[in-house]
Parts: sequence; structure tokens; C-alpha cells
Amino acid sequence: MEDKFVPNIVVGRLPLYLRTLQLMSQEGRRVTSSQELGEKLGISAAQIRKDLSQFGEFGKQGTGYNIDYLTDQLRKILCVNKVWDVAVVGIGDVGHALARYQGFSDRGFRVVLLFDIDPKKIGTKVGGFVIQDISNMVSRIKDAGVQIAMLSVPVDHAQQVTNLLVEAGVEAILNYAPINISVPPEVHVQYIDPVLHLQRMTYYLD
Amino acid sequence: MEDKFVPNIVVGRLPLYLRTLQLMSQEGRRVTSSQELGEKLGISAAQIRKDLSQFGEFGKQGTGYNIDYLTDQLRKILCVNKVWDVAVVGIGDVGHALARYQGFSDRGFRVVLLFDIDPKKIGTKVGGFVIQDISNMVSRIKDAGVQIAMLSVPVDHAQQVTNLLVEAGVEAILNYAPINISVPPEVHVQYIDPVLHLQRMTYYLD
Repeated sequence: MEDKFVPNIVVGRLPLYLRTLQLMSQEGRRVTSSQELGEKLGISAAQIRKDLSQFGEFGKQGTGYNIDYLTDQLRKILCVNKVWDVAVVGIGDVGHALARYQGFSDRGFRVVLLFDIDPKKIGTKVGGFVIQDISNMVSRIKDAGVQIAMLSVPVDHAQQVTNLLVEAGVEAILNYAPINISVPPEVHVQYIDPVLHLQRMTYYLD
Repeated sequence: MEDKFVPNIVVGRLPLYLRTLQLMSQEGRRVTSSQELGEKLGISAAQIRKDLSQFGEFGKQGTGYNIDYLTDQLRKILCVNKVWDVAVVGIGDVGHALARYQGFSDRGFRVVLLFDIDPKKIGTKVGGFVIQDISNMVSRIKDAGVQIAMLSVPVDHAQQVTNLLVEAGVEAILNYAPINISVPPEVHVQYIDPVLHLQRMTYYLD
């Protein structure tokens, strides 16, 4: 899907469209429009049409989008028409929640590997999987061919563990540690830090 | 701080600058530059200087930024030079992790109210606070004057609980339920959905 360059900001909106379409489909809906999607998402209908038109012709003038068809197409574009195995590193409260999170299953991901450094946790089970020793992480991830990791270790360990993940061949890291991590250019990183979102809102409060 | 209009995208970068400066300060650092901040964050030095210049003169040509001074200024700008009380609604795995999250304390927030609908959870303690019955939520939030809530209830309940939060006077909602919620224009909403971030990366994977 990288034949044509699509701005990262456009790519970032596609998962929002997909999520909204999947929810509509679960409600038994068959057809939607860029207007309706736009209202649900706070994005203009013109923007949605423009974003989608970068990838093909998905709707007919006047009849809107077939929800299941557009869902399938977006899943293909985002490469989530398969299920990706994911490792969770650091099984504190956040890692625990990620290991048991119900929202991954029908959206292209499943957690299959858990790692921690704490001897008291290693060998115990969370969400059906045994927490493994982080000292075996590189070989376990390599053996399993896992390309995606979620990082929920303390800030002090985040870069060191990141280096191991890169060594293991991980290509995408979702970092929950509130610190920026350095990776080679071919590795993708996204960040989740609730405080960044909260501070972005307090700016507007009195 | 709303005297001058600053684009939301600029506001959104300020918490990143603040976080980086606070980490530097913890390492005992005194001075930094837009170059160094830019390298750590993957943002151009020019962009950082431009963003900060919207709020005043924080650095001197050639000597860089005083870290503690710029930290103080950013905390004022983002209104986190005080501690905001926060309610967590829905104490499943995610809510549990939020209630116990250690990363809020020195960044302007503390969790003080927990709500759930499950009789088995109501009355039990998480992170030092008792989980209260969601049916008392509106009055409890009003009494406490809490303006910020984190929403970690199932998708099916997200809009209904949002309406109660708005009724209670909450002005900022951080929504962990993977669905868009509707609020009056004066209420701010931010979203955290790990799948959106993961799908944004799988687009680039093979």
C-alpha cells in the first residue's frame, strides 16, 4: 500500500473511520455517508471524502458508502485484515490491563507474549498467558516472529528495553512509558501518555 | 491564557516540551536548547522556537533555555501549576490502572474519586480511594467541584455516563472507551485508544 505517498496525518485518520464503521456494522447498519461519518467524528465530510479518495473509489455519488465493503477495504489498507501478534513488556498495572484488554480481538491484534523483570511475576499468568523473564525476551520474540510490542515499563528502563526490542526485530512499538524513546528510522513508535491529553485540556480550563 | 488565539496543534505540543524539560530537570540539567529538545522529540528546532514564541520570550540568543524557568512558564500556560482533582469512572482493568497510576502526581493531576456500577466493587478501595456507586456520581462530583474525568466504562455505556458527567459540571473528559462521544461545545474531550495507534503503525508494516 506504499505505492503512493499518503501523508501520515491522513493515515492516522483511517483507524478512526474504521472504528466508526465497525461500530455501525455491529448496530446492523448497511450504508453510511461522509456527512454521517463526519458528524460522528467531528471531521468535515469533504475531508473524509478526500482522505478516502487517496486509496480508491469507495462510494457512489448519492448512494453513500457500503459499510461492510468500506470496512473490508480499510482493513486491507491498514493491514489489519489479519491478526498481528503483540508482546507486552512490563506487567505492572498498565501492562496487566493491556494483557487483558478486550478491545484488540476484532481489530487486528492479539497479545501473545508477556515479559517482566520481577521474579515474583515471572511464571504467573495474566489473560491466559504466562509472564516470561525479560532476559529471554529477545530470543522469544525472534522465535515467535512478533513484530509489534507495547512497552509499559518504568521510565528508567524504557530506552534499554526498547534497544532489546529493536534487537529482537520488533518494527512497531506502542510506548506507555512517559518518555521519548530513540529507535532506528525503520522502527515505528507511537506514544500513549494520559497526562499529555489532560494537559492539553487544562490549557482551556480556568 | 486565551487572550491570544493559539492553534490547538501548538497547544498539543506544549505538554511534550514540558515533559521533556521535567525529565531533564530530574537529571540535574539546568540549560537546554531548541536543538536538543528537537532531537529528543523529533520536532525541528525552528518549530519549537516558533511554538514557544507564541507565549513570550523564554530563551536568550546563544544561551538557550533555563530549564526550570521554562518549566515553570509552561506549567502556568497549561494551568498545571496547580493540582487538578480527577474522577475515574469505570474501575475495570483500565480504570484500576488509572486509579493507581504513579505518573500523575508531579504533572498536575491526582485521582480523588472513583465510580463503578458493580455492587461487588462499590465500597472496595483502589489506590487509597473507595469506589463509589455511579448512581451518586453527579452529586459527588458537583460537591467536590471536580472538573476532569477519565472514562473507562464499556462502549455501550460511554455516552450515557458522558451525559451524567456533563450534568455534573465536568469540563474535560479523557475517554478510554473506543467510541466517539458527544458533548456540548464547552466540554473538552480527548481520546485514548491503543488500537488506533497500532493500526496507524501496521499501515507501514508488511
